[in-house]
Amino acid sequence: MRTITTEFTVEWADCDPAGIVFYPRFYAFFDSASWNLFYTAGLTFEVIQQDFHAKGFPAVDVRARFLYPCRLKDQLICTSAITEWHEKAFIVSHTIHNGDIEAVKGEEVRIWGAAHPEDPKRLKAIPIPHEVRRRLEEG
Amino acid sequence: MRTITTEFTVEWADCDPAGIVFYPRFYAFFDSASWNLFYTAGLTFEVIQQDFHAKGFPAVDVRARFLYPCRLKDQLICTSAITEWHEKAFIVSHTIHNGDIEAVKGEEVRIWGAAHPEDPKRLKAIPIPHEVRRRLEEG
Amino acid sequence: MRTITTEFTVEWADCDPAGIVFYPRFYAFFDSASWNLFYTAGLTFEVIQQDFHAKGFPAVDVRARFLYPCRLKDQLICTSAITEWHEKAFIVSHTIHNGDIEAVKGEEVRIWGAAHPEDPKRLKAIPIPHEVRRRLEEG
Amino acid sequence: MRTITTEFTVEWADCDPAGIVFYPRFYAFFDSASWNLFYTAGLTFEVIQQDFHAKGFPAVDVRARFLYPCRLKDQLICTSAITEWHEKAFIVSHTIHNGDIEAVKGEEVRIWGAAHPEDPKRLKAIPIPHEVRRRLEEG
Repeated sequence: MRTITTEFTVEWADCDPAGIVFYPRFYAFFDSASWNLFYTAGLTFEVIQQDFHAKGFPAVDVRARFLYPCRLKDQLICTSAITEWHEKAFIVSHTIHNGDIEAVKGEEVRIWGAAHPEDPKRLKAIPIPHEVRRRLEEG
Repeated sequence: MRTITTEFTVEWADCDPAGIVFYPRFYAFFDSASWNLFYTAGLTFEVIQQDFHAKGFPAVDVRARFLYPCRLKDQLICTSAITEWHEKAFIVSHTIHNGDIEAVKGEEVRIWGAAHPEDPKRLKAIPIPHEVRRRLEEG
Repeated sequence: MRTITTEFTVEWADCDPAGIVFYPRFYAFFDSASWNLFYTAGLTFEVIQQDFHAKGFPAVDVRARFLYPCRLKDQLICTSAITEWHEKAFIVSHTIHNGDIEAVKGEEVRIWGAAHPEDPKRLKAIPIPHEVRRRLEEG
Repeated sequence: MRTITTEFTVEWADCDPAGIVFYPRFYAFFDSASWNLFYTAGLTFEVIQQDFHAKGFPAVDVRARFLYPCRLKDQLICTSAITEWHEKAFIVSHTIHNGDIEAVKGEEVRIWGAAHPEDPKRLKAIPIPHEVRRRLEEG
């Protein structure tokens, strides 16, 4: 299973009037980490469009638990891997550590999305290409 | 049950290279709607600090499902209410409509948070004052 | 001269640990106001692309002065108009009032941008169509 | 003159429907770089509050020119230094390179801000302590 870590420094921009990370920012961290997972597997935005029929891999269901507050200049490490595969969807699990402490845990359900044949405004889940899965499963 | 609606216009700032709302932005909409729920009940940031012993009501567990894409200048309506009460926590449920279509559904578990006596860096859940609950339950 | 006003409520998401609006957020307000200026003139994203050869009207030089702090739930009114026209560029001037107080003033220099013939990765300024200017000049 | 570089990777979260960095994001990069300048000089948020009478060093006038578009996963390097000192204010100049290309240039005028004696809601510029200037001037 390909497992990656992404480092984030908590910036002033991420913090709210309580002095802690504004919780929606953690989902932006998850999203960056998911892109990193794809990029480390050679699956760039161009590659998934040109070689694998996808317009993207949008999140359709995302949950997170906020266990410990993160503050200005805290150094966070997000560990990410795809922990579940379905025919047309997959789950990316993320754990963010703030030092030794588990600060945030979350799961993004994402689909493999092609242009919807009847509605150009939306995407339709299509089967995940074997090669995409192979690249994301190998370490 | 106090139920409020909050209107959002999808701005260029909210959209990603796929031309749709970047999913973490919806959590910022949820957060704004939750603050609105408190403000319409007279529970401003000053009031909850001065009268109700709270430093805030941080989210500890949040989930959302993204059902239909939202695009530039779409007019969204978010309907929000507290749907579950616990001694020290509550759940705010949000449904965002894009026109007639249910576009996003989500739930925020939030705690009533006071300064932690042993660790000034974090909050501790304390019992929700009756008056706070009363104001948020009435229509 | 077409002059519009756009209302913003300062949300928790906009504020930093000092409890005031994080200054980059004001540029997002400017950007929304500029889009509103175009939309009220019937110049939607689709229209400028299909009828007026533009991929967008990107900002190339932007300045702002922050005169008074804005805080959670402050009601802001941004007054915007195009105050200067050049062959291929124009200046949108914005003034944000917080109640009676002038809180922020700024100017965005924007170009009328078509796909660059030699570099698909960037835009090239082209002459602003007369009809576009006409619509944005009239009240 | 203390000159620092800060690296940024352009994330999906930073990009707009045109596929380029949404311009207000560059100001968030500037802000992070300015904090880095202070942190590398040992001037943390705690230190400036406790030792140097400041509540912050807010931006009061900021300008930027956007010279070349930046796209998903572009690696940016921001070079930052304080290029002008006044009694109560200073200018942080930033240049962001995208590979070999100068992509963005900007200047933030910032003040040394203490609590305003007559209005707790705002800050007042006070003389910059010699020690603060000394630390930020040395390499």
